[in-house]
Amino acid sequence: MISPDDDRRYVLTLGCPDRTGIVARISQFLSDLGGWIVEAAYHADQSSDWFFTRQSILASSVDLSVYELRERFAEVAAELGPETEWTLHDSTAPKRVVLMVSKDGHCLHDLLGRAAQGELPATITAVIGNHRDLESVVRSHGIAFHHVPFPKSGQDPEARAAAFDEVRELVDAHDPHAVVLARFMQILPEDLCEHWAGKAINIHHSFLPSFVGARPYHQAFTRGVKLIGATCHYVTPELDAGPIIEQDVTRIDHTYRVADMVREGRDIEKLVLARGLRWHLEDRVLVHGGKTVVFS
Amino acid sequence: MISPDDDRRYVLTLGCPDRTGIVARISQFLSDLGGWIVEAAYHADQSSDWFFTRQSILASSVDLSVYELRERFAEVAAELGPETEWTLHDSTAPKRVVLMVSKDGHCLHDLLGRAAQGELPATITAVIGNHRDLESVVRSHGIAFHHVPFPKSGQDPEARAAAFDEVRELVDAHDPHAVVLARFMQILPEDLCEHWAGKAINIHHSFLPSFVGARPYHQAFTRGVKLIGATCHYVTPELDAGPIIEQDVTRIDHTYRVADMVREGRDIEKLVLARGLRWHLEDRVLVHGGKTVVFS
Amino acid sequence: MISPDDDRRYVLTLGCPDRTGIVARISQFLSDLGGWIVEAAYHADQSSDWFFTRQSILASSVDLSVYELRERFAEVAAELGPETEWTLHDSTAPKRVVLMVSKDGHCLHDLLGRAAQGELPATITAVIGNHRDLESVVRSHGIAFHHVPFPKSGQDPEARAAAFDEVRELVDAHDPHAVVLARFMQILPEDLCEHWAGKAINIHHSFLPSFVGARPYHQAFTRGVKLIGATCHYVTPELDAGPIIEQDVTRIDHTYRVADMVREGRDIEKLVLARGLRWHLEDRVLVHGGKTVVFS
Amino acid sequence: MISPDDDRRYVLTLGCPDRTGIVARISQFLSDLGGWIVEAAYHADQSSDWFFTRQSILASSVDLSVYELRERFAEVAAELGPETEWTLHDSTAPKRVVLMVSKDGHCLHDLLGRAAQGELPATITAVIGNHRDLESVVRSHGIAFHHVPFPKSGQDPEARAAAFDEVRELVDAHDPHAVVLARFMQILPEDLCEHWAGKAINIHHSFLPSFVGARPYHQAFTRGVKLIGATCHYVTPELDAGPIIEQDVTRIDHTYRVADMVREGRDIEKLVLARGLRWHLEDRVLVHGGKTVVFS
Repeated sequence: MISPDDDRRYVLTLGCPDRTGIVARISQFLSDLGGWIVEAAYHADQSSDWFFTRQSILASSVDLSVYELRERFAEVAAELGPETEWTLHDSTAPKRVVLMVSKDGHCLHDLLGRAAQGELPATITAVIGNHRDLESVVRSHGIAFHHVPFPKSGQDPEARAAAFDEVRELVDAHDPHAVVLARFMQILPEDLCEHWAGKAINIHHSFLPSFVGARPYHQAFTRGVKLIGATCHYVTPELDAGPIIEQDVTRIDHTYRVADMVREGRDIEKLVLARGLRWHLEDRVLVHGGKTVVFS
Repeated sequence: MISPDDDRRYVLTLGCPDRTGIVARISQFLSDLGGWIVEAAYHADQSSDWFFTRQSILASSVDLSVYELRERFAEVAAELGPETEWTLHDSTAPKRVVLMVSKDGHCLHDLLGRAAQGELPATITAVIGNHRDLESVVRSHGIAFHHVPFPKSGQDPEARAAAFDEVRELVDAHDPHAVVLARFMQILPEDLCEHWAGKAINIHHSFLPSFVGARPYHQAFTRGVKLIGATCHYVTPELDAGPIIEQDVTRIDHTYRVADMVREGRDIEKLVLARGLRWHLEDRVLVHGGKTVVFS
Repeated sequence: MISPDDDRRYVLTLGCPDRTGIVARISQFLSDLGGWIVEAAYHADQSSDWFFTRQSILASSVDLSVYELRERFAEVAAELGPETEWTLHDSTAPKRVVLMVSKDGHCLHDLLGRAAQGELPATITAVIGNHRDLESVVRSHGIAFHHVPFPKSGQDPEARAAAFDEVRELVDAHDPHAVVLARFMQILPEDLCEHWAGKAINIHHSFLPSFVGARPYHQAFTRGVKLIGATCHYVTPELDAGPIIEQDVTRIDHTYRVADMVREGRDIEKLVLARGLRWHLEDRVLVHGGKTVVFS
Repeated sequence: MISPDDDRRYVLTLGCPDRTGIVARISQFLSDLGGWIVEAAYHADQSSDWFFTRQSILASSVDLSVYELRERFAEVAAELGPETEWTLHDSTAPKRVVLMVSKDGHCLHDLLGRAAQGELPATITAVIGNHRDLESVVRSHGIAFHHVPFPKSGQDPEARAAAFDEVRELVDAHDPHAVVLARFMQILPEDLCEHWAGKAINIHHSFLPSFVGARPYHQAFTRGVKLIGATCHYVTPELDAGPIIEQDVTRIDHTYRVADMVREGRDIEKLVLARGLRWHLEDRVLVHGGKTVVFS
């Protein structure tokens, strides 16, 4: 019997070449098991002929463990062709997030507050900072803080590489579902981008593709735009060019100096990162061809 | 064979009591016919235990006329229980819209412009006005204009009833898919609300439920709100209380007099009405329990 | 000599009956003193014939203390008539804020984070809670927390009055510039509303005047609105009817349950309260006739 | 005596190097003449040390013609230095707008509708099109339509130059206050950009500086952005790089094909162009250093 308070879900995501009958096949599979579909989303991208779906099933409606369900579903997925990519998770399985920060703490404070409020579907297990400015607030939440100093940009490439090696080891020790660059301000080396592909998430303080790279608010000020924004995206080797998860903007006018944009922009950065991270952690983001499908 | 330029769709909408297996049943039905699903949306409302879906199928992928498809689908619908409500339309079947206006022409101009641009999935077959102010612009688009004068509000109830009888006859002669009160400024009598239930659409110039009734911008000015809005909703006997299809707002500040709100509000009214009307005409709006599900 | 890093301002606000020559009089006064105007805003409200201004002057450009400047300006204000209301503050004078909370901590976390980031132009000197849930996070920021339990709504009016007396004493001991009801969930008694008139600020979780009173998200769900919002306003004896400082909304759709609205609404509540509080603390909000002029 | 229905204003705009006492000087000048200031806006840009103001004075409160007022004010302006730029207009003096269009008519329909509604503070005196598609709708509004065919992009530079010469002559014959490229789709030659500097206004269908040049919606689709926008800007020789007057965006998601973006984008284009054009015609836009100050 299904309790209304039962929040455990089996969440299936799937992407495969589009063709007739996929929805029927998947929904019949779930129906045969008695699966109660709480949320179902489908998308057929006509430009790439790719099919995407996300299904959220009341776990208690299915008399199988997530492992058994995976085993059974693997047969369905196999029918859909060798390119098919899918995941199937228990929504109550613990998820871990590692944050990487520098000196600017607004995104950190926001995520810590959300975690304390129970809003984040994950545990922040560690924070790595290249400065110590945010150490005490992190520790006051009972979260580990690792200080890994970095040489100045462009200097001492060996020390830089060593620092990134240390970061990699520290992060991987937590086996996180997301590595969040919460205004980390250091460009990840290519190998790390690839190693964390699909789980390293960055917040960039502009409405990409405008104002790639450093000091986007200064660029925005110089150009005289009437809106500023922020972009949450997966990190890829090409700077600020990864698949976009979420973006938003806020209105400014001629009275805004760069400092005012920085202040207003923080609120957009916090919101956009928090939304993007939540969607990622809830398996709502599917990546294909450098773009995302977000079943929010 | 399916042509990429083929825009003909069979659009199915359905609402029924929720239970396991509905998606499987419908998608299997479509799959068995070779139906290529271009858009599919589902929603299960947990508060009312009601299931909603809208499916858009490439008509050329199914070897049936819309009449034959309806006949076949009726069996599926019957299985889903006697409360089931469904529609199945050919997206290329001509649709007709009748507009009702008074003196203020911004919504009319906007809809005429959209019709001229081919943006509206329907033909505006007639405009009824209780004043002649907008007659010439309507006629310049080659559309019939009917002038039906109304007595002043609260005066001569018999003449008023007669005028509404005339309106009803004029409108019904076009058998329209939507009767749009494009700032008509007269309150429909209860019997007409019921007669046109589900196809009479009103645009109210406030963010409902704030500022019901007359002069909402004056009410907004007096209250000192910081945003003004507009609401597109189905007309029901209770004033401004019908199911909401779409709403939006725009920011104002202390410098806005009522006249400024009226000017800015027009742009929101136009957008909100145009969106709501398009969704209605594309069978994207399902009504249940005084609220809408909009598969936009 | 004026240093570009000099952030000290003398901030003048003034409201008076409108007439010709006010701007000339004030700007001549400032000009005669060598005052460098960094920000100047004016508003003449035609419906009430009232004039409003806010001027921000580089303090170092004027060879007077704020007390001397006040004394001098009093003569100008006297010329503008007996109804004239004005304030003149040194922007670097310390400002104090007291927060009142219950169990829900999102606004508290947000304001604490902003304070820690140096974003708030004030010090949070104390937090009063009718529950102990948020005590530890407040104390971890080195801020005093006072627990004042309240009887259940509608019960034991004497204990209730006593609790409010205690709150009043605790708050007044800090002589705060703002008393923020950060989701306090208790209705202030009339005498306290009047005692804190112009400095008690509430955040209401709806787009007022829609959904006054309790459980606004439930009301919004029932009505089926397509946007939800929040309103920051000064507290007055009439519930949720005080002068509105700031409002904002966010889009929802039929998939949002009440719990989803609560989650999304929190982000709007935080933003709207933070903006409203900052404007209040920076002397940007002038109240007249139940409405605000916000020189943001 | 001042009638509340009197809408005639003398509108002053001024930009000059910033220094102490400018506001006092201008407001004293106006006060001495008995000028009733209805709207006053000031801005001091600290990065360029430039001062901007716009003042709207009730014309009937000053016992001078606009010519006499200009003569008097010239002395004040002279005191403010040789770099000072200013204008002084009677708001009721007729203003003329010429539109340039191609095949896509949504901006044209929108502006014609606004003109018919009396929303535009100007007369559309002519429309120039490089195709005849929109000729009939223009003529139905009683407005002259000039057809000037253009060779295909990149072909026959001589015919192209001749066509632009014809356009220039046709436009200049109307002595317009604004030349609006309402989706004209042809790049103006450099000399024409300079000849119409400060009055040629373009609407670009992206949120600049993203997606400069051709097919911005295709660029947006490829990049996978989550918002699309439009930008209204003054035309300068560098493509899509002129001072931005207004911008706005609308949310899209993965379900939007290019055709859907085109449809949704039209609504933003119309709004952004209409706002920008109105502000330009009401002397609300001051240009300095490649950016605009908009006293909206």
